[in-house]
Amino acid sequence: MRAPIGVFDSGLGGLTVLRALHERLPHEDLLYFGDTARVPYGTKGEKTVRAFARQDAGLLVARGVKMVVVACNTASAFALDHLCDVLPVPVLGVIEPGVRAALAATRGGTIGVIGTSGTIRSGRYQQGLAAAGLGPERIVAAECPLFVPLVEEGLGGHAMTRLAVAEYLRPVRDAHVDTLILGCTHYPLLSADIEAFLGSDVRLVDSAEALATAACGALAAAGALNDGDEPGRLSFILSDIPWKFAEIGARFLGKPIEGVESVGLDEMEAAGHALGGQA
Amino acid sequence: MRAPIGVFDSGLGGLTVLRALHERLPHEDLLYFGDTARVPYGTKGEKTVRAFARQDAGLLVARGVKMVVVACNTASAFALDHLCDVLPVPVLGVIEPGVRAALAATRGGTIGVIGTSGTIRSGRYQQGLAAAGLGPERIVAAECPLFVPLVEEGLGGHAMTRLAVAEYLRPVRDAHVDTLILGCTHYPLLSADIEAFLGSDVRLVDSAEALATAACGALAAAGALNDGDEPGRLSFILSDIPWKFAEIGARFLGKPIEGVESVGLDEMEAAGHALGGQA
Repeated sequence: MRAPIGVFDSGLGGLTVLRALHERLPHEDLLYFGDTARVPYGTKGEKTVRAFARQDAGLLVARGVKMVVVACNTASAFALDHLCDVLPVPVLGVIEPGVRAALAATRGGTIGVIGTSGTIRSGRYQQGLAAAGLGPERIVAAECPLFVPLVEEGLGGHAMTRLAVAEYLRPVRDAHVDTLILGCTHYPLLSADIEAFLGSDVRLVDSAEALATAACGALAAAGALNDGDEPGRLSFILSDIPWKFAEIGARFLGKPIEGVESVGLDEMEAAGHALGGQA
Repeated sequence: MRAPIGVFDSGLGGLTVLRALHERLPHEDLLYFGDTARVPYGTKGEKTVRAFARQDAGLLVARGVKMVVVACNTASAFALDHLCDVLPVPVLGVIEPGVRAALAATRGGTIGVIGTSGTIRSGRYQQGLAAAGLGPERIVAAECPLFVPLVEEGLGGHAMTRLAVAEYLRPVRDAHVDTLILGCTHYPLLSADIEAFLGSDVRLVDSAEALATAACGALAAAGALNDGDEPGRLSFILSDIPWKFAEIGARFLGKPIEGVESVGLDEMEAAGHALGGQA
Protein backbone atom coordinates (compact mmCIF):
# COMPACT_ATOMS: atom_id res chain seq x y z
CA MET A 1 0.00 0.00 0.00
CA ARG A 2 1.33 3.37 -1.09
CA ALA A 3 -0.50 5.36 1.66
CA PRO A 4 1.82 6.91 4.25
CA ILE A 5 2.30 5.79 7.83
CA GLY A 6 1.18 8.54 10.22
CA VAL A 7 3.25 9.33 13.29
CA PHE A 8 2.25 11.85 15.94
CA ASP A 9 3.83 13.27 19.04
CA SER A 10 3.16 16.13 21.44
CA GLY A 11 6.00 18.04 19.82
CA LEU A 12 9.29 17.36 18.11
CA GLY A 13 10.58 14.51 20.31
CA GLY A 14 8.74 11.95 18.17
CA LEU A 15 11.12 12.73 15.33
CA THR A 16 13.41 10.16 16.98
CA VAL A 17 10.67 7.61 16.18
CA LEU A 18 10.30 8.93 12.62
CA ARG A 19 14.02 8.54 12.14
CA ALA A 20 13.99 4.97 13.42
CA LEU A 21 10.99 4.11 11.21
CA HIS A 22 12.64 5.64 8.15
CA GLU A 23 15.78 3.58 8.71
CA ARG A 24 13.77 0.41 9.20
CA LEU A 25 11.30 1.03 6.34
CA PRO A 26 13.13 3.17 3.76
CA HIS A 27 10.45 2.71 1.08
CA GLU A 28 7.53 3.87 3.22
CA ASP A 29 6.17 7.41 3.03
CA LEU A 30 5.98 8.85 6.54
CA LEU A 31 3.73 11.72 7.60
CA TYR A 32 4.66 13.32 10.92
CA PHE A 33 2.37 15.50 13.01
CA GLY A 34 3.83 17.36 16.00
CA ASP A 35 1.41 19.20 18.30
CA THR A 36 3.93 21.95 18.95
CA ALA A 37 1.15 24.42 19.81
CA ARG A 38 0.19 22.45 22.91
CA VAL A 39 3.41 20.68 23.83
CA PRO A 40 4.21 19.31 26.43
CA TYR A 41 1.67 16.60 27.27
CA GLY A 42 3.70 15.03 30.09
CA THR A 43 2.64 17.47 32.81
CA LYS A 44 -1.03 17.46 31.83
CA GLY A 45 -4.02 15.44 32.99
CA GLU A 46 -5.49 12.32 31.41
CA LYS A 47 -8.64 13.94 30.00
CA THR A 48 -6.70 16.74 28.31
CA VAL A 49 -4.15 14.39 26.78
CA ARG A 50 -6.92 12.17 25.42
CA ALA A 51 -8.72 15.13 23.83
CA PHE A 52 -5.49 16.32 22.19
CA ALA A 53 -4.49 12.84 20.98
CA ARG A 54 -7.90 12.46 19.33
CA GLN A 55 -7.37 15.60 17.29
CA ASP A 56 -3.79 14.62 16.42
CA ALA A 57 -4.77 11.16 15.19
CA GLY A 58 -7.86 12.55 13.48
CA LEU A 59 -5.70 14.93 11.48
CA LEU A 60 -3.49 12.09 10.25
CA VAL A 61 -6.50 9.96 9.33
CA ALA A 62 -7.97 12.89 7.40
CA ARG A 63 -4.72 12.92 5.39
CA GLY A 64 -5.18 9.27 4.42
CA VAL A 65 -2.60 7.40 6.49
CA LYS A 66 -2.75 3.59 6.56
CA MET A 67 -1.61 3.30 10.20
CA VAL A 68 -1.22 5.66 13.15
CA VAL A 69 1.92 5.39 15.28
CA VAL A 70 1.60 7.14 18.65
CA ALA A 71 5.19 8.23 19.25
CA CYS A 72 4.31 10.11 22.44
CA ASN A 73 4.58 8.05 25.61
CA THR A 74 2.09 10.17 27.54
CA ALA A 75 -0.48 9.93 24.73
CA SER A 76 0.13 6.17 24.50
CA ALA A 77 -0.47 5.89 28.25
CA PHE A 78 -3.74 7.81 28.28
CA ALA A 79 -5.27 7.61 24.81
CA LEU A 80 -4.27 4.37 23.08
CA ASP A 81 -7.42 2.45 24.07
CA HIS A 82 -9.61 5.33 22.98
CA LEU A 83 -7.79 5.69 19.63
CA CYS A 84 -8.09 1.94 18.96
CA ASP A 85 -11.85 2.32 19.48
CA VAL A 86 -12.42 5.32 17.22
CA LEU A 87 -9.82 5.19 14.43
CA PRO A 88 -10.57 3.39 11.14
CA VAL A 89 -6.91 2.29 10.77
CA PRO A 90 -4.55 0.24 12.98
CA VAL A 91 -2.93 2.14 15.88
CA LEU A 92 0.36 1.36 17.59
CA GLY A 93 1.52 2.85 20.89
CA VAL A 94 4.99 2.98 22.32
CA ILE A 95 4.49 1.33 25.70
CA GLU A 96 3.91 -2.31 24.76
CA PRO A 97 6.92 -2.44 22.39
CA GLY A 98 9.06 -0.79 25.09
CA VAL A 99 7.98 -3.34 27.68
CA ARG A 100 8.73 -6.22 25.28
CA ALA A 101 12.15 -4.84 24.44
CA ALA A 102 13.01 -4.41 28.12
CA LEU A 103 11.97 -7.98 28.91
CA ALA A 104 14.19 -9.20 26.07
CA ALA A 105 17.13 -7.10 27.28
CA THR A 106 17.12 -7.84 31.01
CA ARG A 107 19.40 -10.48 32.44
CA GLY A 108 16.94 -11.36 35.16
CA GLY A 109 17.46 -8.27 37.27
CA THR A 110 15.44 -5.19 38.08
CA ILE A 111 13.93 -3.13 35.24
CA GLY A 112 13.68 0.64 35.57
CA VAL A 113 11.44 3.02 33.64
CA ILE A 114 11.75 6.78 33.46
CA GLY A 115 9.29 9.19 31.87
CA THR A 116 7.17 12.29 32.28
CA SER A 117 4.91 12.73 35.31
CA GLY A 118 1.90 11.64 33.24
CA THR A 119 3.53 8.50 31.86
CA ILE A 120 4.91 7.35 35.20
CA ARG A 121 1.76 8.19 37.18
CA SER A 122 -0.39 6.35 34.62
CA GLY A 123 1.37 3.17 35.78
CA ARG A 124 1.14 1.66 32.26
CA TYR A 125 4.78 0.60 31.96
CA GLN A 126 4.73 -0.83 35.48
CA GLN A 127 1.49 -2.73 34.68
CA GLY A 128 2.98 -4.09 31.47
CA LEU A 129 6.06 -5.38 33.30
CA ALA A 130 3.94 -6.83 36.10
CA ALA A 131 1.69 -8.60 33.57
CA ALA A 132 4.81 -10.34 32.25
CA GLY A 133 5.37 -11.77 35.73
CA LEU A 134 7.84 -9.30 37.24
CA GLY A 135 7.30 -8.83 40.96
CA PRO A 136 7.08 -5.29 42.33
CA GLU A 137 10.60 -5.63 43.81
CA ARG A 138 11.94 -5.92 40.25
CA ILE A 139 10.27 -2.74 38.91
CA VAL A 140 11.42 0.80 39.68
CA ALA A 141 9.93 3.93 38.10
CA ALA A 142 10.98 7.58 38.24
CA GLU A 143 9.51 10.85 36.91
CA CYS A 144 12.07 13.13 35.29
CA PRO A 145 10.14 16.36 34.61
CA LEU A 146 13.14 18.54 33.73
CA PHE A 147 14.59 16.20 31.11
CA VAL A 148 12.30 17.45 28.32
CA PRO A 149 13.16 21.16 28.73
CA LEU A 150 16.86 20.30 29.16
CA VAL A 151 16.85 18.38 25.87
CA GLU A 152 14.89 21.10 24.06
CA GLU A 153 17.50 23.62 25.18
CA GLY A 154 20.24 21.37 23.77
CA LEU A 155 21.85 20.87 27.19
CA GLY A 156 22.92 17.23 26.88
CA GLY A 157 26.29 16.96 28.65
CA HIS A 158 25.81 20.25 30.52
CA ALA A 159 26.44 20.50 34.28
CA MET A 160 22.73 21.19 34.86
CA THR A 161 21.79 18.00 33.07
CA ARG A 162 24.31 16.00 35.08
CA LEU A 163 22.76 17.37 38.28
CA ALA A 164 19.24 16.50 37.10
CA VAL A 165 20.30 12.99 36.08
CA ALA A 166 21.90 12.41 39.48
CA GLU A 167 18.82 13.67 41.28
CA TYR A 168 16.19 11.76 39.31
CA LEU A 169 18.13 8.54 38.73
CA ARG A 170 19.52 8.00 42.23
CA PRO A 171 16.63 5.64 43.16
CA VAL A 172 17.13 3.81 39.86
CA ARG A 173 20.83 3.33 40.58
CA ASP A 174 20.17 2.35 44.19
CA ALA A 175 17.78 -0.37 42.96
CA HIS A 176 20.61 -1.86 40.85
CA VAL A 177 18.60 -2.01 37.62
CA ASP A 178 20.16 -3.93 34.76
CA THR A 179 17.79 -2.45 32.13
CA LEU A 180 16.26 1.01 31.89
CA ILE A 181 13.37 1.95 29.61
CA LEU A 182 13.72 5.50 28.25
CA GLY A 183 9.97 6.13 28.38
CA CYS A 184 9.95 9.46 26.57
CA THR A 185 11.00 10.29 23.01
CA HIS A 186 13.31 13.04 24.27
CA TYR A 187 15.41 10.87 26.52
CA PRO A 188 17.59 9.08 23.95
CA LEU A 189 19.33 12.44 23.53
CA LEU A 190 20.47 12.15 27.16
CA SER A 191 21.78 8.58 26.79
CA ALA A 192 25.40 9.61 27.36
CA ASP A 193 24.59 11.46 30.59
CA ILE A 194 22.43 8.61 31.84
CA GLU A 195 25.08 6.02 31.01
CA ALA A 196 27.75 8.11 32.72
CA PHE A 197 25.69 8.08 35.90
CA LEU A 198 24.37 4.49 35.88
CA GLY A 199 27.39 2.77 34.34
CA SER A 200 27.67 1.23 30.90
CA ASP A 201 26.50 -2.22 32.01
CA VAL A 202 22.92 -0.97 32.35
CA ARG A 203 21.06 -1.55 29.09
CA LEU A 204 19.09 1.46 27.87
CA VAL A 205 15.91 0.60 25.95
CA ASP A 206 15.11 3.31 23.42
CA SER A 207 11.37 3.25 22.86
CA ALA A 208 11.83 4.75 19.36
CA GLU A 209 13.71 1.65 18.21
CA ALA A 210 11.23 -0.68 19.88
CA LEU A 211 8.28 1.09 18.27
CA ALA A 212 9.84 1.04 14.79
CA THR A 213 10.34 -2.71 15.10
CA ALA A 214 6.72 -3.19 16.16
CA ALA A 215 5.38 -1.02 13.33
CA CYS A 216 7.43 -2.95 10.81
CA GLY A 217 6.07 -6.26 12.11
CA ALA A 218 2.45 -5.07 12.18
CA LEU A 219 2.56 -3.77 8.60
CA ALA A 220 4.18 -6.93 7.30
CA ALA A 221 1.60 -9.09 9.10
CA ALA A 222 -1.24 -7.07 7.59
CA GLY A 223 0.30 -7.23 4.11
CA ALA A 224 0.28 -3.43 4.07
CA LEU A 225 3.94 -2.71 3.33
CA ASN A 226 4.66 -0.49 0.36
CA ASP A 227 6.12 -2.68 -2.36
CA GLY A 228 7.47 0.21 -4.43
CA ASP A 229 11.18 0.80 -4.95
CA GLU A 230 11.40 4.57 -4.63
CA PRO A 231 12.77 6.04 -1.41
CA GLY A 232 9.97 6.94 1.02
CA ARG A 233 9.07 10.62 1.43
CA LEU A 234 9.05 12.39 4.79
CA SER A 235 6.36 15.05 5.32
CA PHE A 236 5.84 17.25 8.36
CA ILE A 237 2.82 19.03 9.81
CA LEU A 238 3.06 21.13 12.97
CA SER A 239 0.43 23.06 14.93
CA ASP A 240 2.96 25.79 15.74
CA ILE A 241 6.34 26.85 14.40
CA PRO A 242 8.19 27.37 17.69
CA TRP A 243 11.05 29.85 18.07
CA LYS A 244 13.80 27.28 18.05
CA PHE A 245 12.13 24.91 15.62
CA ALA A 246 14.96 24.46 13.10
CA GLU A 247 17.55 23.87 15.80
CA ILE A 248 15.43 21.51 17.94
CA GLY A 249 14.01 19.64 14.96
CA ALA A 250 17.41 18.90 13.45
CA ARG A 251 18.63 17.66 16.83
CA PHE A 252 15.90 14.98 16.92
CA LEU A 253 15.77 14.08 13.24
CA GLY A 254 19.53 14.09 12.73
CA LYS A 255 19.21 16.37 9.71
CA PRO A 256 17.42 19.61 8.81
CA ILE A 257 13.63 19.41 8.48
CA GLU A 258 12.34 20.60 5.13
CA GLY A 259 8.92 21.53 3.79
CA VAL A 260 6.90 21.91 6.96
CA GLU A 261 3.18 22.62 6.74
CA SER A 262 1.52 24.34 9.66
CA VAL A 263 -2.12 23.87 10.71
CA GLY A 264 -4.26 26.17 12.84
CA LEU A 265 -6.58 25.55 15.77
CA ASP A 266 -9.59 25.39 13.44
CA GLU A 267 -8.27 22.42 11.50
CA MET A 268 -7.33 20.64 14.75
CA GLU A 269 -10.84 21.15 16.09
CA ALA A 270 -12.40 19.86 12.89
CA ALA A 271 -10.15 16.77 12.90
CA GLY A 272 -11.28 15.87 16.42
CA HIS A 273 -14.95 16.39 15.62
CA ALA A 274 -14.72 14.33 12.41
CA LEU A 275 -13.91 11.18 14.40
CA GLY A 276 -17.32 11.33 16.08
CA GLY A 277 -18.05 10.22 19.65
CA GLN A 278 -16.46 11.80 22.71
CA ALA A 279 -12.87 11.80 24.00
CA MET B 1 -19.37 47.88 39.60
CA ARG B 2 -19.85 44.48 41.16
CA ALA B 3 -18.67 42.52 38.08
CA PRO B 4 -15.36 40.69 38.56
CA ILE B 5 -12.01 41.63 37.09
CA GLY B 6 -10.81 38.86 34.75
CA VAL B 7 -7.17 37.79 34.81
CA PHE B 8 -5.65 35.25 32.44
CA ASP B 9 -2.31 33.60 32.03
CA SER B 10 -0.87 30.71 30.07
CA GLY B 11 -0.86 28.65 33.25
CA LEU B 12 -0.49 29.14 36.97
CA GLY B 13 2.26 31.80 36.99
CA GLY B 14 -0.31 34.58 36.69
CA LEU B 15 -1.51 33.74 40.20
CA THR B 16 1.31 36.07 41.34
CA VAL B 17 -0.65 38.84 39.56
CA LEU B 18 -3.94 37.71 41.11
CA ARG B 19 -2.33 37.83 44.53
CA ALA B 20 -1.00 41.36 43.96
CA LEU B 21 -4.40 42.52 42.65
CA HIS B 22 -6.21 40.99 45.62
CA GLU B 23 -3.91 42.79 48.06
CA ARG B 24 -4.32 46.09 46.25
CA LEU B 25 -8.09 45.76 45.66
CA PRO B 26 -9.44 43.61 48.51
CA HIS B 27 -13.11 44.35 47.70
CA GLU B 28 -12.95 43.33 44.05
CA ASP B 29 -14.10 39.91 42.87
CA LEU B 30 -11.36 38.35 40.76
CA LEU B 31 -11.88 35.62 38.16
CA TYR B 32 -8.71 33.81 37.09
CA PHE B 33 -8.33 31.73 33.97
CA GLY B 34 -5.18 29.64 33.51
CA ASP B 35 -4.66 27.90 30.15
CA THR B 36 -2.97 24.95 31.81
CA ALA B 37 -3.93 22.65 28.91
CA ARG B 38 -1.69 24.56 26.52
CA VAL B 39 0.95 26.04 28.80
CA PRO B 40 3.66 27.25 28.14
CA TYR B 41 3.22 30.11 25.65
CA GLY B 42 6.79 31.42 25.92
CA THR B 43 8.32 28.95 23.46
CA LYS B 44 5.52 29.26 20.88
CA GLY B 45 5.06 31.45 17.84
CA GLU B 46 3.17 34.73 17.57
CA LYS B 47 0.18 33.41 15.63
CA THR B 48 -0.41 30.54 18.04
CA VAL B 49 -0.15 32.75 21.11
CA ARG B 50 -2.61 35.22 19.59
CA ALA B 51 -5.14 32.48 18.82
CA PHE B 52 -4.87 31.11 22.38
CA ALA B 53 -5.09 34.56 24.01
CA ARG B 54 -8.27 35.26 22.03
CA GLN B 55 -9.94 32.19 23.46
CA ASP B 56 -8.69 32.91 26.98
CA ALA B 57 -9.98 36.49 26.96
CA GLY B 58 -13.19 35.41 25.22
CA LEU B 59 -13.89 32.95 28.02
CA LEU B 60 -13.54 35.68 30.66
CA VAL B 61 -15.76 38.07 28.69
CA ALA B 62 -18.40 35.34 28.38
CA ARG B 63 -18.36 35.15 32.19
CA GLY B 64 -19.14 38.85 32.48
CA VAL B 65 -15.87 40.44 33.62
CA LYS B 66 -15.61 44.25 33.60
CA MET B 67 -11.92 44.29 32.62
CA VAL B 68 -9.40 41.79 31.26
CA VAL B 69 -5.90 41.74 32.76
CA VAL B 70 -3.37 39.89 30.60
CA ALA B 71 -1.04 38.51 33.27
CA CYS B 72 1.04 36.57 30.73
CA ASN B 73 4.01 38.48 29.35
CA THR B 74 4.14 36.48 26.12
CA ALA B 75 0.42 37.02 25.47
CA SER B 76 0.83 40.72 26.27
CA ALA B 77 3.69 40.90 23.76
CA PHE B 78 1.81 39.22 20.92
CA ALA B 79 -1.91 39.68 21.52
CA LEU B 80 -2.59 42.91 23.41
CA ASP B 81 -3.29 45.00 20.30
CA HIS B 82 -5.60 42.35 18.92
CA LEU B 83 -7.48 42.00 22.24
CA CYS B 84 -7.91 45.76 22.51
CA ASP B 85 -9.51 45.65 19.04
CA VAL B 86 -11.94 42.80 19.66
CA LEU B 87 -12.90 42.86 23.36
CA PRO B 88 -15.93 44.83 24.56
CA VAL B 89 -14.21 45.68 27.90
CA PRO B 90 -10.93 47.44 28.78
CA VAL B 91 -7.76 45.31 28.51
CA LEU B 92 -4.50 45.77 30.38
CA GLY B 93 -1.23 44.09 29.52
CA VAL B 94 1.83 43.63 31.67
CA ILE B 95 4.53 45.19 29.49
CA GLU B 96 3.70 48.90 29.65
CA PRO B 97 3.33 48.89 33.47
CA GLY B 98 6.61 46.99 33.75
CA VAL B 99 8.42 49.50 31.56
CA ARG B 100 7.02 52.41 33.59
CA ALA B 101 8.02 50.81 36.89
CA ALA B 102 11.55 50.17 35.60
CA LEU B 103 11.93 53.78 34.43
CA ALA B 104 10.81 54.94 37.89
CA ALA B 105 13.24 52.58 39.63
CA THR B 106 16.43 53.18 37.65
CA ARG B 107 19.05 55.59 38.91
CA GLY B 108 20.06 56.53 35.42
CA GLY B 109 21.91 53.34 34.59
CA THR B 110 21.30 50.39 32.33
CA ILE B 111 17.94 48.54 32.49
CA GLY B 112 17.79 44.80 31.96
CA VAL B 113 14.80 42.67 31.01
CA ILE B 114 14.52 38.90 31.21
CA GLY B 115 11.70 36.74 29.88
CA THR B 116 10.68 33.78 27.74
CA SER B 117 11.99 33.40 24.20
CA GLY B 118 8.72 34.79 22.85
CA THR B 119 8.66 37.84 25.09
CA ILE B 120 12.30 38.77 24.49
CA ARG B 121 12.21 38.08 20.73
CA SER B 122 9.05 40.17 20.37
CA GLY B 123 11.20 43.18 21.37
CA ARG B 124 8.23 44.84 23.12
CA TYR B 125 10.01 45.65 26.38
CA GLN B 126 13.04 46.92 24.50
CA GLN B 127 10.79 49.10 22.29
CA GLY B 128 8.98 50.48 25.34
CA LEU B 129 12.25 51.45 26.99
CA ALA B 130 13.59 52.95 23.76
CA ALA B 131 10.39 54.97 23.30
CA ALA B 132 11.08 56.56 26.71
CA GLY B 133 14.41 57.79 25.37
CA LEU B 134 16.82 55.08 26.54
CA GLY B 135 19.64 54.50 24.07
CA PRO B 136 20.40 50.93 22.99
CA GLU B 137 23.55 50.97 25.16
CA ARG B 138 21.32 51.28 28.23
CA ILE B 139 19.05 48.29 27.42
CA VAL B 140 20.03 44.64 27.83
CA ALA B 141 17.68 41.69 27.29
CA ALA B 142 18.08 37.96 27.95
CA GLU B 143 15.96 34.86 27.29
CA CYS B 144 15.77 32.46 30.25
CA PRO B 145 13.94 29.42 28.85
CA LEU B 146 14.63 27.07 31.76
CA PHE B 147 13.38 29.40 34.49
CA VAL B 148 9.71 28.43 34.01
CA PRO B 149 10.23 24.66 34.37
CA LEU B 150 12.64 25.22 37.28
CA VAL B 151 10.01 27.27 39.12
CA GLU B 152 7.26 24.79 38.33
CA GLU B 153 9.39 22.04 39.83
CA GLY B 154 9.85 24.12 42.98
CA LEU B 155 13.61 24.38 42.52
CA GLY B 156 14.19 27.93 43.74
CA GLY B 157 17.51 27.87 45.65
CA HIS B 158 18.57 24.56 44.07
CA ALA B 159 22.06 24.12 42.59
CA MET B 160 20.51 23.66 39.11
CA THR B 161 18.74 26.98 39.42
CA ARG B 162 21.94 28.72 40.53
CA LEU B 163 23.68 27.32 37.46
CA ALA B 164 20.87 28.50 35.16
CA VAL B 165 20.85 31.96 36.75
CA ALA B 166 24.60 32.29 36.29
CA GLU B 167 24.38 31.19 32.66
CA TYR B 168 21.45 33.36 31.58
CA LEU B 169 22.25 36.46 33.67
CA ARG B 170 25.98 36.75 32.98
CA PRO B 171 25.40 39.29 30.14
CA VAL B 172 23.03 41.20 32.42
CA ARG B 173 25.65 41.39 35.16
CA ASP B 174 28.41 42.27 32.70
CA ALA B 175 26.29 45.20 31.48
CA HIS B 176 26.14 46.57 35.05
CA VAL B 177 22.35 46.99 35.10
CA ASP B 178 20.92 48.91 38.02
CA THR B 179 17.33 47.72 37.39
CA LEU B 180 16.05 44.38 36.09
CA ILE B 181 12.52 43.74 34.83
CA LEU B 182 11.31 40.24 35.71
CA GLY B 183 9.37 39.88 32.45
CA CYS B 184 7.57 36.63 33.28
CA THR B 185 5.08 35.88 36.06
CA HIS B 186 7.17 32.92 37.20
CA TYR B 187 10.35 34.84 37.85
CA PRO B 188 9.50 36.57 41.16
CA LEU B 189 9.81 33.10 42.71
CA LEU B 190 13.50 33.15 41.73
CA SER B 191 14.15 36.64 43.17
CA ALA B 192 16.48 35.32 45.89
CA ASP B 193 18.62 33.40 43.36
CA ILE B 194 18.74 36.36 41.00
CA GLU B 195 19.67 38.76 43.79
CA ALA B 196 22.37 36.41 45.04
CA PHE B 197 23.96 36.48 41.58
CA LEU B 198 23.48 40.13 40.62
CA GLY B 199 23.94 41.69 44.08
CA SER B 200 21.30 43.35 46.21
CA ASP B 201 21.86 46.83 44.79
CA VAL B 202 20.15 45.83 41.52
CA ARG B 203 16.46 46.70 41.75
CA LEU B 204 14.15 43.89 40.61
CA VAL B 205 10.91 45.05 38.99
CA ASP B 206 8.14 42.52 39.59
CA SER B 207 5.68 42.86 36.73
CA ALA B 208 2.86 41.49 38.93
CA GLU B 209 3.11 44.49 41.27
CA ALA B 210 3.37 46.93 38.39
CA LEU B 211 0.32 45.44 36.69
CA ALA B 212 -1.78 45.52 39.88
CA THR B 213 -0.97 49.21 40.30
CA ALA B 214 -1.96 49.90 36.69
CA ALA B 215 -5.24 47.97 36.99
CA CYS B 216 -6.13 49.85 40.16
CA GLY B 217 -5.51 53.19 38.44
CA ALA B 218 -7.46 52.27 35.32
CA LEU B 219 -10.52 51.10 37.27
CA ALA B 220 -10.52 54.20 39.46
CA ALA B 221 -10.21 56.49 36.42
CA ALA B 222 -13.17 54.72 34.76
CA GLY B 223 -15.28 54.92 37.95
CA ALA B 224 -15.56 51.13 37.79
CA LEU B 225 -14.28 50.16 41.24
CA ASN B 226 -16.56 48.01 43.35
CA ASP B 227 -17.91 50.21 46.12
CA GLY B 228 -19.17 47.32 48.29
CA ASP B 229 -17.64 46.47 51.66
CA GLU B 230 -17.54 42.67 51.51
CA PRO B 231 -14.22 40.96 50.87
CA GLY B 232 -13.73 40.18 47.17
CA ARG B 233 -14.14 36.57 46.06
CA LEU B 234 -11.47 34.67 44.15
CA SER B 235 -12.65 32.19 41.49
CA PHE B 236 -10.52 29.92 39.32
CA ILE B 237 -11.04 28.31 35.93
CA LEU B 238 -8.42 26.06 34.34
CA SER B 239 -8.32 24.26 30.99
CA ASP B 240 -6.49 21.30 32.58
CA ILE B 241 -5.87 20.08 36.10
CA PRO B 242 -2.16 19.28 35.89
CA TRP B 243 -0.49 16.57 37.98
CA LYS B 244 1.15 18.93 40.41
CA PHE B 245 -1.61 21.51 40.39
CA ALA B 246 -2.21 21.84 44.16
CA GLU B 247 1.50 22.15 44.90
CA ILE B 248 2.34 24.57 42.06
CA GLY B 249 -0.79 26.66 42.55
CA ALA B 250 -0.19 27.21 46.26
CA ARG B 251 3.40 28.21 45.51
CA PHE B 252 2.22 31.08 43.27
CA LEU B 253 -0.87 32.14 45.18
CA GLY B 254 0.71 31.90 48.61
CA LYS B 255 -2.18 29.75 49.89
CA PRO B 256 -4.13 26.69 48.75
CA ILE B 257 -6.43 27.18 45.73
CA GLU B 258 -10.01 26.20 46.40
CA GLY B 259 -13.03 25.60 44.20
CA VAL B 260 -11.46 25.25 40.77
CA GLU B 261 -13.71 24.83 37.74
CA SER B 262 -12.26 23.12 34.69
CA VAL B 263 -13.28 23.81 31.09
CA GLY B 264 -12.83 21.60 28.05
CA LEU B 265 -11.54 22.26 24.53
CA ASP B 266 -15.09 22.76 23.26
CA GLU B 267 -15.81 25.69 25.54
CA MET B 268 -12.44 27.26 24.66
CA GLU B 269 -13.23 26.96 20.95
CA ALA B 270 -16.66 28.50 21.41
CA ALA B 271 -15.21 31.40 23.44
CA GLY B 272 -12.79 32.24 20.62
CA HIS B 273 -15.47 32.02 17.92
CA ALA B 274 -17.88 34.21 19.96
CA LEU B 275 -15.53 37.20 19.68
CA GLY B 276 -15.96 37.23 15.90
CA GLY B 277 -13.26 38.25 13.42
CA GLN B 278 -9.96 36.44 13.03
CA ALA B 279 -6.97 36.13 15.34
